[in-house]
Amino acid sequence: MSRNLGLEGVYCESDLPSLIRRSGMADWQGDHVTILDRRLLPHSKEFIKCTTAEDIAKAIKDMAIQGAFSISIAAGYGLALAAKNATFEDIKKSATLLKATRPTGLALSRMLDAALDQARNNPANMQAAIVSIVDKAAAALAKQGHETGLNAAEIIPDGATILTHCFPDRSYAYLLMAAKAQGKSYNIICSETRPYLQGTRLTALVANELGFDTKIITDGMGGYLMRDGLISHFITAADRVCHDGTVCNKIGTYQYALACQDTGKPYITLRQSGPDPESYTEKDITVEMRDGKEIVEFQGHRLAPAGVEGLYPTFDIIPPRLITSIVTDRGAFAPNSVANYFQTPPKVPEAIL
Amino acid sequence: MSRNLGLEGVYCESDLPSLIRRSGMADWQGDHVTILDRRLLPHSKEFIKCTTAEDIAKAIKDMAIQGAFSISIAAGYGLALAAKNATFEDIKKSATLLKATRPTGLALSRMLDAALDQARNNPANMQAAIVSIVDKAAAALAKQGHETGLNAAEIIPDGATILTHCFPDRSYAYLLMAAKAQGKSYNIICSETRPYLQGTRLTALVANELGFDTKIITDGMGGYLMRDGLISHFITAADRVCHDGTVCNKIGTYQYALACQDTGKPYITLRQSGPDPESYTEKDITVEMRDGKEIVEFQGHRLAPAGVEGLYPTFDIIPPRLITSIVTDRGAFAPNSVANYFQTPPKVPEAIL
Repeated sequence: MSRNLGLEGVYCESDLPSLIRRSGMADWQGDHVTILDRRLLPHSKEFIKCTTAEDIAKAIKDMAIQGAFSISIAAGYGLALAAKNATFEDIKKSATLLKATRPTGLALSRMLDAALDQARNNPANMQAAIVSIVDKAAAALAKQGHETGLNAAEIIPDGATILTHCFPDRSYAYLLMAAKAQGKSYNIICSETRPYLQGTRLTALVANELGFDTKIITDGMGGYLMRDGLISHFITAADRVCHDGTVCNKIGTYQYALACQDTGKPYITLRQSGPDPESYTEKDITVEMRDGKEIVEFQGHRLAPAGVEGLYPTFDIIPPRLITSIVTDRGAFAPNSVANYFQTPPKVPEAIL
Repeated sequence: MSRNLGLEGVYCESDLPSLIRRSGMADWQGDHVTILDRRLLPHSKEFIKCTTAEDIAKAIKDMAIQGAFSISIAAGYGLALAAKNATFEDIKKSATLLKATRPTGLALSRMLDAALDQARNNPANMQAAIVSIVDKAAAALAKQGHETGLNAAEIIPDGATILTHCFPDRSYAYLLMAAKAQGKSYNIICSETRPYLQGTRLTALVANELGFDTKIITDGMGGYLMRDGLISHFITAADRVCHDGTVCNKIGTYQYALACQDTGKPYITLRQSGPDPESYTEKDITVEMRDGKEIVEFQGHRLAPAGVEGLYPTFDIIPPRLITSIVTDRGAFAPNSVANYFQTPPKVPEAIL
């Protein structure tokens, strides 16, 4: 595949929004990995050069890179860095370190297990074996995202005003690419997504680069705009989908899903790889708590009075009754039939996450 | 009444949280008005010296002072400043200017009408007449807030964990004072309330000054914590209450009210003066839109990509079906019987707002 084509193999890299180009995620460079520092976007475009698994773990933990699938690829390449002149036991230790960075999404853990398997089966050249499986996973993820975007574009009509929350990653980017190719016009309203402002900084950047009318609201405003009739669809990604149609996504999603139910607007989840094979209900999900300091400070400045701390649950659990459709690479499913994903012919058979 | 007693006439000023002392609101100083600049709290305590109605209008418009009742008093004193060596026609022009600052809450407009009446009826000393009626209104508001706090403390049990949104003003402060006096312990969780962070900066400050355990969350997190069982009550003020029990309050309140309904938690509105006499349903409410710049910037720094603007509806409309109780100075009402407020004997007969 030419380096001039996007990982999905359809678009030229230069036509893709910057965040879903190879350079906008985690990019293997032979002896190091470059990661676009998403914390500095949109005003500054700086790359972190990672030469060790520890560098990668720090970039994931500190949210220089985010998104369930993007961090999986970063972690996979991180393991490849650890595999240079290392024993299998050393690599296993690095995998443990990388797995601990973000526990809620499972793709990261699965990527590392697959990479460890490759290393075990190719003792003579563990690093090359790991890079090869991670490259394959990265391409498959892009293809799945592309198929998911095409499926979502089919059900979202011209003229829609779409509320998003957090950064719905490549499926959302490919949805906008597909809509544009079909001559559809969408208005995008990005919920800012405190505390990291992924909505303001990342989601808006993608829509704006593609020429869509893009507005920002705070995380408390979507319900008002749905009642007021301005928003027609609510779309997010999912960090995990369970067999019963439960969705786990960025904190704040549950309140918006309730507003969708109350105002009769569809809530559409983009989950390119369908439900997690081992997650049946919300009981199988552990929501990670992050440091409350991130809530009481903003870009290093303390906001709250002395003696007052923050609470930071990172993900919401959205019950299936609040979800209209879960769109995957294999088509759109009602939440209560999303487990049919497993019986549907794969669109990207080589996918491993 | 001694200057050492709070405006409510019960507590020593020094025992009150700073924001509901005379100095923490708008304070008449004979030839000028001091306003504590709430935008700089909690880290810096600076007073704006207003010598003209225009100064007051700017302080209200720029949110140096906020809260439906506090801005009414500030506006009333602003009119008194305009009344020095002025004709009645001049004063009327200043009233128009002051009314235009924040159109959604009606107390401001009513305060100015009452002050204009006083000036019309006392042509020989218009300024003193205005100051007198505003002083009376300020004291009555504090007494109403105190009664409302007492009524709320009766229905909120020891050990409650209370989510608040925005700054529920003096009724909330007096609720905490009453609970403390009764030996009750509450945990306070403040929703930060973007974009101005009144929750982080003001609501947390009051609870913290009074010694309550106080935590901050972002505006998307309350629903999660209700599902998780951590929050037992949701309490806000109201910028307006209609006869049918509809509540108008800070943007973000509707989503939290939905989460209360979905999780079976009570949503309690503190509205010290009961429903607005002339507002029957939500059709009588106009929600003001503020400048979207306030959403895409934070403390002067631009957050969003170039070409992306903000949308800023300032208030939510909460239908009565989502509200458990509306607590006033005359007692607690179910939303569908809140119009009975008008037939209930007044606790503060001298109230004019």
